[in-house]
Amino acid sequence: MITVLTGGTGGAKFVDGLRRILPPQELTIIVNTGDDHDWWGLYVSPDIDSITYVLAGILSPERGWGVRGDTFHCLQAMKALGEPDWFSVGDRDLATHLLRSQLLSQGRTLTEATRLIAEKLGVRSRVLPMSDQRVETRIEKPAGELSFEEYFVKRRYQDPVKSVRFAGASESKPAPGALEAIIKTDSILIAPSNPITSIGPILAVPGIREALRETAARVVAVSPIIGNAAVSGPAARLMASQNLPASIAGIADSYADFLDTLIVHDSDAETAQALSSIGVEFASTDILMRTTEDRLRIANSALVCALPDNAAVKVAS
Amino acid sequence: MITVLTGGTGGAKFVDGLRRILPPQELTIIVNTGDDHDWWGLYVSPDIDSITYVLAGILSPERGWGVRGDTFHCLQAMKALGEPDWFSVGDRDLATHLLRSQLLSQGRTLTEATRLIAEKLGVRSRVLPMSDQRVETRIEKPAGELSFEEYFVKRRYQDPVKSVRFAGASESKPAPGALEAIIKTDSILIAPSNPITSIGPILAVPGIREALRETAARVVAVSPIIGNAAVSGPAARLMASQNLPASIAGIADSYADFLDTLIVHDSDAETAQALSSIGVEFASTDILMRTTEDRLRIANSALVCALPDNAAVKVAS
Repeated sequence: MITVLTGGTGGAKFVDGLRRILPPQELTIIVNTGDDHDWWGLYVSPDIDSITYVLAGILSPERGWGVRGDTFHCLQAMKALGEPDWFSVGDRDLATHLLRSQLLSQGRTLTEATRLIAEKLGVRSRVLPMSDQRVETRIEKPAGELSFEEYFVKRRYQDPVKSVRFAGASESKPAPGALEAIIKTDSILIAPSNPITSIGPILAVPGIREALRETAARVVAVSPIIGNAAVSGPAARLMASQNLPASIAGIADSYADFLDTLIVHDSDAETAQALSSIGVEFASTDILMRTTEDRLRIANSALVCALPDNAAVKVAS
Repeated sequence: MITVLTGGTGGAKFVDGLRRILPPQELTIIVNTGDDHDWWGLYVSPDIDSITYVLAGILSPERGWGVRGDTFHCLQAMKALGEPDWFSVGDRDLATHLLRSQLLSQGRTLTEATRLIAEKLGVRSRVLPMSDQRVETRIEKPAGELSFEEYFVKRRYQDPVKSVRFAGASESKPAPGALEAIIKTDSILIAPSNPITSIGPILAVPGIREALRETAARVVAVSPIIGNAAVSGPAARLMASQNLPASIAGIADSYADFLDTLIVHDSDAETAQALSSIGVEFASTDILMRTTEDRLRIANSALVCALPDNAAVKVAS
């Protein structure tokens, strides 16, 4: 059994590699829900959608979010009605939001709604939200606050960031099955996701970080940072806002209390050697995910680090 | 000022003729909301949508409902998710339902939501729901009951009908402005709509029928029946369920307490002469609406009957 913690587009790419290698029933994905937001009156869960779609084989490869080949006619009509259109929802994607919103309004939990939708789309891996309670990632600016999607999508992460908080986290509980998936698993993979706003919210749910420290499973992360820059998105800037160096040292620091191995880019191998004193092992490969082959290679590297004795895992050619 | 009572596809065609002749600000449309229903968790108002779209010039001319050139990708995705797909909602059409549902959930009335959406779509005529309260047309079968859309769309009006009732009607009130639009107007036109399930719900709202009896304005209806058959839909069958003859006599009977003139098909002119004793005047023309020219001709006929002294109304060539 493999348990993955993930969020964002890098996470979805990593999971795409894993799903091409592992039997689906051996994979549990614990997904960030700090980006969840109300859109046109519907409950939208961007990271759960991306993971569900990638596992169903329908994630748009060009966009990295939403449904392959989707159209945006409802979005255009909403714009014509004067409604906000900065968050792109495709017409097929909309069906997911409609169904989830209905299930939640009927009293189902987010875990149940996520499972039902994944089943309908033929997903056989387990997709778990980090929590059934609402935990909202809030980006605090020098003046005012933004939701994560306002910061990331609407304002294209151009605002200066003072700090990041996870509203509701202290009252939240891990989703049913999430702690067990961390404790009773063979290994845990942390996707190359933003440590502050993709993995950070998951770690902010009381009990999850403790379970990661306690588990006997190996914990392997793939760095979302190469040199001093994020592979994509605002990770470097957000790390700086938390007084973390935007480097593999900052990633290792974020996860130091539970991480066994950090997989870094080949160009960071020397930097990694100098960090050997902090109690984290390092492995290096080309961690840029441009092609399916890249995704397979990185997924394999992570599995080899996480399951050193597992002969069933073969490095993809 | 012209006030129209309408519902269904025949009503939308008739209003299309009127909007091509009259200045928009002279037209008030009171619309059946007995077909309104919850669909995928959204509030859908089929007749208000058709009237709003036809006034905005975006009603699909092929289908007679929904938005011109619309796609159905969300519907296909909902079907793939195992959700009901018997009520067709286009992707652009969905924007209207999303916005209306949001406005209602924010505490706006149906009248306000209808006005806001119509304004956004550039409609300058006034579109009024018959009521802000929920009045549901229920089709009673020998065993069990159906909503109107279940009867009409899902089961294609094949079920035997015992009776028709308007649930909630006795507790409903006319929408703000509706009674005034009947009392203080130059004339009232009843569209060639189903008298039982399109005009019937409007007349079931307490106060509306009384206002039609009291108004000094002329009341002119266009028959939805030619000979013994409805031009389209289940009008004939539903009239029979109410012990009304499926003929122009049945239409005249339905509206006898307030109607001045009934416009019938040329082929019914002889039948009309034999009915002269019931206190309704008759006029005849070709009332089949296949082309835009047909719609203009019938709208003009209605206006000529309703406004006999109004020289500004010209019969379209």
